[in-house]
Amino acid sequence: MRDRYFSLDPSQAAAARELYESVVELPLVCPHGHVDPRIFADPDYQFGSPVDLLIIPDHYVFRMLYSQGITLDALGIKRLPDAPKDERHSESQDHREIWRLVCAHWHLFRATPTGIWLRDELADVFGLTLKLNSQNADAIYDAIADKLQSADFRPRALYDRFNIEVLATTDAATDRLEQHGAIRESGWHGRIIPTFRPDALVNIAAPGWHEQIDQLSQAAGIAVKDYGSYIRALENRREFFKSMGATATDHAALSAYTHRLSDGEARAIFQRALQSQASSQEAARFGGHMLMEMARMSSEDGLVMQLHIGSYRNHNAWLHERYGSDMGADIPISSEFTNNLRPLLDEFGNRRDMTLVLFNLDETTYSRELAPLAGHYPLLRLGPPWWFFDSWLGMTRFLDAVVETAGIANLAGFNDDTRAYPSIPTRHDVWRRVCADWLAGQLRRGFIDDDDAHEMMRALAYDLAKQTYRLDG
Amino acid sequence: MRDRYFSLDPSQAAAARELYESVVELPLVCPHGHVDPRIFADPDYQFGSPVDLLIIPDHYVFRMLYSQGITLDALGIKRLPDAPKDERHSESQDHREIWRLVCAHWHLFRATPTGIWLRDELADVFGLTLKLNSQNADAIYDAIADKLQSADFRPRALYDRFNIEVLATTDAATDRLEQHGAIRESGWHGRIIPTFRPDALVNIAAPGWHEQIDQLSQAAGIAVKDYGSYIRALENRREFFKSMGATATDHAALSAYTHRLSDGEARAIFQRALQSQASSQEAARFGGHMLMEMARMSSEDGLVMQLHIGSYRNHNAWLHERYGSDMGADIPISSEFTNNLRPLLDEFGNRRDMTLVLFNLDETTYSRELAPLAGHYPLLRLGPPWWFFDSWLGMTRFLDAVVETAGIANLAGFNDDTRAYPSIPTRHDVWRRVCADWLAGQLRRGFIDDDDAHEMMRALAYDLAKQTYRLDG
Amino acid sequence: MRDRYFSLDPSQAAAARELYESVVELPLVCPHGHVDPRIFADPDYQFGSPVDLLIIPDHYVFRMLYSQGITLDALGIKRLPDAPKDERHSESQDHREIWRLVCAHWHLFRATPTGIWLRDELADVFGLTLKLNSQNADAIYDAIADKLQSADFRPRALYDRFNIEVLATTDAATDRLEQHGAIRESGWHGRIIPTFRPDALVNIAAPGWHEQIDQLSQAAGIAVKDYGSYIRALENRREFFKSMGATATDHAALSAYTHRLSDGEARAIFQRALQSQASSQEAARFGGHMLMEMARMSSEDGLVMQLHIGSYRNHNAWLHERYGSDMGADIPISSEFTNNLRPLLDEFGNRRDMTLVLFNLDETTYSRELAPLAGHYPLLRLGPPWWFFDSWLGMTRFLDAVVETAGIANLAGFNDDTRAYPSIPTRHDVWRRVCADWLAGQLRRGFIDDDDAHEMMRALAYDLAKQTYRLDG
Repeated sequence: MRDRYFSLDPSQAAAARELYESVVELPLVCPHGHVDPRIFADPDYQFGSPVDLLIIPDHYVFRMLYSQGITLDALGIKRLPDAPKDERHSESQDHREIWRLVCAHWHLFRATPTGIWLRDELADVFGLTLKLNSQNADAIYDAIADKLQSADFRPRALYDRFNIEVLATTDAATDRLEQHGAIRESGWHGRIIPTFRPDALVNIAAPGWHEQIDQLSQAAGIAVKDYGSYIRALENRREFFKSMGATATDHAALSAYTHRLSDGEARAIFQRALQSQASSQEAARFGGHMLMEMARMSSEDGLVMQLHIGSYRNHNAWLHERYGSDMGADIPISSEFTNNLRPLLDEFGNRRDMTLVLFNLDETTYSRELAPLAGHYPLLRLGPPWWFFDSWLGMTRFLDAVVETAGIANLAGFNDDTRAYPSIPTRHDVWRRVCADWLAGQLRRGFIDDDDAHEMMRALAYDLAKQTYRLDG
Repeated sequence: MRDRYFSLDPSQAAAARELYESVVELPLVCPHGHVDPRIFADPDYQFGSPVDLLIIPDHYVFRMLYSQGITLDALGIKRLPDAPKDERHSESQDHREIWRLVCAHWHLFRATPTGIWLRDELADVFGLTLKLNSQNADAIYDAIADKLQSADFRPRALYDRFNIEVLATTDAATDRLEQHGAIRESGWHGRIIPTFRPDALVNIAAPGWHEQIDQLSQAAGIAVKDYGSYIRALENRREFFKSMGATATDHAALSAYTHRLSDGEARAIFQRALQSQASSQEAARFGGHMLMEMARMSSEDGLVMQLHIGSYRNHNAWLHERYGSDMGADIPISSEFTNNLRPLLDEFGNRRDMTLVLFNLDETTYSRELAPLAGHYPLLRLGPPWWFFDSWLGMTRFLDAVVETAGIANLAGFNDDTRAYPSIPTRHDVWRRVCADWLAGQLRRGFIDDDDAHEMMRALAYDLAKQTYRLDG
Repeated sequence: MRDRYFSLDPSQAAAARELYESVVELPLVCPHGHVDPRIFADPDYQFGSPVDLLIIPDHYVFRMLYSQGITLDALGIKRLPDAPKDERHSESQDHREIWRLVCAHWHLFRATPTGIWLRDELADVFGLTLKLNSQNADAIYDAIADKLQSADFRPRALYDRFNIEVLATTDAATDRLEQHGAIRESGWHGRIIPTFRPDALVNIAAPGWHEQIDQLSQAAGIAVKDYGSYIRALENRREFFKSMGATATDHAALSAYTHRLSDGEARAIFQRALQSQASSQEAARFGGHMLMEMARMSSEDGLVMQLHIGSYRNHNAWLHERYGSDMGADIPISSEFTNNLRPLLDEFGNRRDMTLVLFNLDETTYSRELAPLAGHYPLLRLGPPWWFFDSWLGMTRFLDAVVETAGIANLAGFNDDTRAYPSIPTRHDVWRRVCADWLAGQLRRGFIDDDDAHEMMRALAYDLAKQTYRLDG
């Protein structure tokens, strides 16, 4: 449907279509996401079965099915090797059977972004326009499986077909970036760049932290034995990521709490952490301090800093123990920026030569805190609606809540933030359609004029992401 | 007005009308409300005057009038027997005069759900289409009074005329359910079922708690002298309610705080409560523990658990002292579920054979916490917008905020939640119209197709409430 | 554009236009704002350059420019005399150059209220319909400068042209109101009244508090040497403001915390404050107590009390140190009323002869707390959307969130709340258009009828502000 999703007023829909079509040929800029770089390193990479591609890696899909009583075992999700042995379940191995199960419950996804993405993706990428159900499950399975065999469905071929200009992955700070190296060495023209994510090194209370520090020592070639060497090793890794094309870092935290420790305190807490003696309070203070340090490093090396706030990870203990992380059981909590971010803004907020992009899962902060902050501090840009809010209505509410106060120049454009590589075009398409429809409303109601609308459209679809993440270079 | 309240776009309005009409003949399922069962026990029950029926029991009506300076005395609200004697006011006895006062101020209810409900109720139930004002107050009063005399306006006759399939009342856990017994024994075909509400027994800090415990002992036939007998007595009462047709329990709390006490702690706090020595902190912990216990009992007896969160009851101390509870002075506070509900979800969240329905008065939780929780945990369903949000815009915001993340399969359909029996059809009508209009928007804009829209419409209007509350049996 | 900003549905737009036109001739009631009374005291007052008038005093304008890297120096904002000397910048003196800079960046204001206000103001007040840009910057500068020379652009002439009925300024409690006196003595027919703002006297933790107390002593002619004389002096000043035409007071606080201290405590804390020994906790408790005292005084002298909650002032320490307050760096925080305001409501909430108008910057409180409170307590009225929410979408969300619960009779109408005198007509115009469009939607969708819509329109545009602020006298 050509005008799908647009408002029903004919004049607004016509303007929306016109704006949408003015950017439809612009390349996709993908500055933040979770695609595995491995799929580009191997020129002949194949995606496996339709279930390998579309179901097993997508927690948006199985969280909904799980909520309606379908087990993760039945969906082919692997239990952890060290999962409790008290139950004897194991995951389904029959991908066709899993696909049938999903199709039989596809009605659960009516009016959800997951439903819309998969529908548009099947239509636009696979040329399949049937609506999933029990009757056609097998036929669609076969059709997808068939396509996935063909050379046209190799990741590199899709990169060109999707018209991607650049795609950033997200990588542990200790990652050797061997896949990225292989991509570079292969001489392929695609631009796949890493993003520096040090969360596992910064959270001194996390169970595997000591192993992480060992990996840091090895990756950096610096024996991390105190706070000073820790900081040097992090700086070293950032430099390496930059050399591999990174333009940004990514940080996740439960809250936006920032706090500058004295050098002595930082050293002392780090030492206690090495001895496994740091308290949870010290861990929180150290985390707040390390956000300051990461900002300090960004002020020096120019990497754009991203901060994702407010996800209570692995909320379902039973599930986490059996299946691990990213199982659709991360739940948002309320967030606060005005007080929490003030120490960081005191140090860096007035910097015009660096950028901090903020993301969160509490919509109340959009108009109350984020837009007023971004509409004042040169440092800040607002990331697009994240996760549960990467949806038609979520995006519309975001634009409604922030543009009047922050304008669009303080936004970071769009991120698809996805693991689901073939869904990238449809995710960008939904964003572009939302923006086109929103701007068309502004235009037809007389808030902006036609020139404004076209320049804003292009900025939201393309320019802002490229500028914000310094991808011009 | 046939298409009242629908969006103005002609194609959306046409689709909305078509969807609405597809469910207009479906019976009303009323799984949660506060109608007095007495009105069904007596086949010849009469409602009294128009003021007895429409004004005195409706705190939605008199809170607004009170806010504009009209006293409760002038509206016929009785002062408590033990109200302070310092003032010599007493309630108006002249119901015609009260009605005139209300009509003279009816403009206050413009654009409010109370205004819409009464207008639609007068038109659809009483056949009176005049707009209330000082001029026609007497004529309308007489017309209503006249109707109320007739056999067509007995509660049982209205039950059939309203096409109600089942109606649940809300009853104290110590209630002997004599009215429900009388209804059963009368052989009448209507299905009026009780709901188990133990709040007064669970809140050990409430003033009348000891009397409540005495009543529990008597009702259960179990002398409650310690925590063990208390739990047994509650289980006994639940069993009795079930035998009388109950399918659900109802719980109200200021916050969603849950916490499992050790058996020893629970026993100790209960013992101190019996001796009136429990602290307010202990009372809060005990309340959080009892929500866990109620969930445990639901996991065993299959009663659907309802939880209503976030109303600061009797906020106006002056008013409460003089007139008592439910005087329009309950005010919402902000709520939190992600942390507060986690202990309960840890124990019961993955259960597929039991249901917890959540209600609250803080819309910020819809998209941030409730939809993500309900879109993951098999245990959870979301109740419809409650109280101040049982309104056209409140319902629309609810659908906008939750469906993209939780779908509609994790919703509980509609509850009218009312004491005002003759307003039940119009309340369901507003919900059905909101859903029809919302789905019509989704349909015309291409998010869902016609089959989707019709199945979702039926689910929201009828099926979800019936399934959620296990009313099929 | 005659129908600008209205919804696109032709029938709604037609109704909106009709409603809008029904109030377009009504005078402007301006019960709260920050216009300098000096401009009315001098009959020949001139506004200076276009930059003096439109840029330098408007933190809405320069906060956005600052967020995109333009320094305040470049915009002509003066540094404080005691600003740090480590940097040698000074403000631009070339107003034409500043104007060019602003015009070159005017695209930043697309879809913002600031952009809309200035466009409408230039068109309606100055007759200039060009869109600002680098090409026409000089021509527009000259045209505005030219107009500002003419007698038609004296503040008093504009007062008549704007059809203002009354305009309240906001004045320090220690202000001698000499400008207001001069206006009165001049015999001019305009009604410019003061508003009593005692914040600087009430916040005992603020740096300049002792000087403020000295000024209070002098202004009141009462030596403030203890809590008793302090209260008497405040009462004295209120009486003086009232004698000068004031009908209202204004209070700002970070939170809505209220608390009644015992007389002994109040005296003791005040004494410690005089000796600079009060703790920050004592200052907070004293502030909460003084809100109670101010309400008590209002209950006696009849001044309408306004309370503005939730702005974290001077969030940017670096900027504050160099440029002072009101530099666009005030950021909202989340607010709470249900608990915080209860002590005040316990004492005064049921009063029908006094009024407290509430404003805040946290939209989540609209439907959750403010509308339920205002829809019950006779004392309360809700102020219009404040500051960042004085915008098309902000106002629409406000009406959507509060009217269903509080009706419109519990609203305070509109305040322009501005320092920017020539923007007053366009600010009222936007409010009137929002209300017309919102009511037209209610009308066409059948929630209200034509009579309702017209009476509500007039109330929102004119009557409510006049009644709430007791401006009939």
